[in-house]
Amino acid sequence: MHELTVDLGDRSYPIYIGEHLLGESRWLQPHIPGKQVCIVTNETIAPLYLSRLKASLDGYQIHTVILPDGESFKTLEVVNRIFDGLLESRHNRTTTLIALGGGVVGDMTGFAAACYQRGVGFIQVPTTLLAMVDSSVGGKTGVNHPLGKNMIGAFYQPYCVLADMTLLGSLPPRELSAGIAEIIKYGLISDYPFFEWLEQNVDRLLVGDQEALAYAVERSCRNKAEVVAADEHEGGIRAILNFGHTFGHAIETAQGYGNWLHGEAVAAGMVMAADLSWRRGDISADELARVRDLLVRARLPVTAPDDMTPARFVELMGVDKKVLDGRLRLVLLEAMGNAVVTSDIDTDLLAETFAACR
Amino acid sequence: MHELTVDLGDRSYPIYIGEHLLGESRWLQPHIPGKQVCIVTNETIAPLYLSRLKASLDGYQIHTVILPDGESFKTLEVVNRIFDGLLESRHNRTTTLIALGGGVVGDMTGFAAACYQRGVGFIQVPTTLLAMVDSSVGGKTGVNHPLGKNMIGAFYQPYCVLADMTLLGSLPPRELSAGIAEIIKYGLISDYPFFEWLEQNVDRLLVGDQEALAYAVERSCRNKAEVVAADEHEGGIRAILNFGHTFGHAIETAQGYGNWLHGEAVAAGMVMAADLSWRRGDISADELARVRDLLVRARLPVTAPDDMTPARFVELMGVDKKVLDGRLRLVLLEAMGNAVVTSDIDTDLLAETFAACR
Repeated sequence: MHELTVDLGDRSYPIYIGEHLLGESRWLQPHIPGKQVCIVTNETIAPLYLSRLKASLDGYQIHTVILPDGESFKTLEVVNRIFDGLLESRHNRTTTLIALGGGVVGDMTGFAAACYQRGVGFIQVPTTLLAMVDSSVGGKTGVNHPLGKNMIGAFYQPYCVLADMTLLGSLPPRELSAGIAEIIKYGLISDYPFFEWLEQNVDRLLVGDQEALAYAVERSCRNKAEVVAADEHEGGIRAILNFGHTFGHAIETAQGYGNWLHGEAVAAGMVMAADLSWRRGDISADELARVRDLLVRARLPVTAPDDMTPARFVELMGVDKKVLDGRLRLVLLEAMGNAVVTSDIDTDLLAETFAACR
Repeated sequence: MHELTVDLGDRSYPIYIGEHLLGESRWLQPHIPGKQVCIVTNETIAPLYLSRLKASLDGYQIHTVILPDGESFKTLEVVNRIFDGLLESRHNRTTTLIALGGGVVGDMTGFAAACYQRGVGFIQVPTTLLAMVDSSVGGKTGVNHPLGKNMIGAFYQPYCVLADMTLLGSLPPRELSAGIAEIIKYGLISDYPFFEWLEQNVDRLLVGDQEALAYAVERSCRNKAEVVAADEHEGGIRAILNFGHTFGHAIETAQGYGNWLHGEAVAAGMVMAADLSWRRGDISADELARVRDLLVRARLPVTAPDDMTPARFVELMGVDKKVLDGRLRLVLLEAMGNAVVTSDIDTDLLAETFAACR
């Protein structure tokens, strides 16, 4: 078991990373202050892991809320079902919510914990690779609104995170790849030696090698934790975590959310950001090719869909010259392993990237 | 104009207290970081003060959300209307929400500000005496759930509070009295000289003497601010602010919310808490009479409704002997101007209080 601390002063918390952690009571129990626990999970995960989690919580008063599975249910109305459950089973201010699931369950459960009686305890047990390396670090919680993703939420830190590699055995290969996209991101934005490690070891991740997965999760969380500790509320540097995301969001919006996985859209978006970085002269053609090759080996898309014309990107990213002045900020590579946020963007080069990456 | 600072480290904020403050731009503008402002008010207040507030915000991009008036609309669904308005008018993370109204508008607007894009700016312009002395200090925001009052919310501090006595001119006399109940509370729990001042000056408050009102608001806010600064998240001492509230909530629940005003129920509840304090030997019969007399002069109820039998109180407060062990905590007077929180409660004395205060 590896333990990593996310260093946020009096809101610091540990991430436990390893194999066969879920059934053991010793990881979670020190982080549960009261006698009440509310497990929030979804219909897909509950049959797989709920009983194992419950078995490790002997002696607690446990209530379970099972949500429908999918990003389309990440809404205020569905969070209200968690409040219903908490109030019906009379949970008080000492209760602890445990999110057992992927990013959607984690985001909603964290937001519910932030708001229930103005804040109760919260533990994350991520069941996807993406949730382990992304949403379990940093305290971003919330829900979508019909007019925008993640528009309603809170910064709220868990008491601990339990990342059990064993749970990844049930993850569909496409979701495993989507998680690897975010892992590669950390190599690109802040940890070039990790990028090189990934070039050597990506195949081990793809076949579910638990030791390699644990190493990649720990190193990803460590990279993210450093950025978050420096800028918890995203006033500045934290924005580099959005590398590939502005292009990726345009793709997700155009395709309708859910057709491309988030990690897949980010993968294509990272290639676009790297392509623009190369056109600006900040990375070499060889380095750009290595970014693309690694993502291809991870079975991720490296181009936008055919119907994403440059005009469509311009529309979705709001980047016509009129509105551009200082508004569009992109995360680009100054070098491999070193991302910067910039609003100094040459629209001609950007147009070339749009045209090249389809 | 009097200025008072609520001292909460990097979340400290000023309360401006005086007359004719609303129309002046100089109070609010320094606390608005961006160009976007969203005013949230209700149907009753909008015709009275909305145009005056808008006139002081020349040059800003203003969106207005007008909510229905009343505690029954303090729900997650109605808060969602604020989110709808913010997103439809494309407000970004630099927007500032201004609550123009009483406690319900303030609680909902503060909660919306806490959650919109994980936290944006927020200013309170209370239009009731109760909101000026209670909800505008301390950062408690939130909404009700069908199964409990204020069960969903956040601790979230405003950037500033503007308490303009001029606005109290339109307040119905019954609501003025309800606000005075909370003012008397501060004298009882932590400021005996203020209680004596109120014995001298309560009639001036009742006739709307703006100088006396400003003094009472400032001194109340100062008392509350000291308690909140010592215990922002209600881990301990802050509970003394609930003096009279446990009895009062039982009355409100029994009568159905909205039939008694909150301040009225608290007034009767404070007499009950003082009565029990006298039975425990902590204040004298004369002091108890002074509490009752001052509340009567403020035109507030000093007994529970006739149909509130002792058995009904026992039921609503969950105080039968079986469940009592350590569960019921009451705020009582150790002396005039000195409240304590205790779970050491003699159920026989409590029964006498239930019987006596009808």
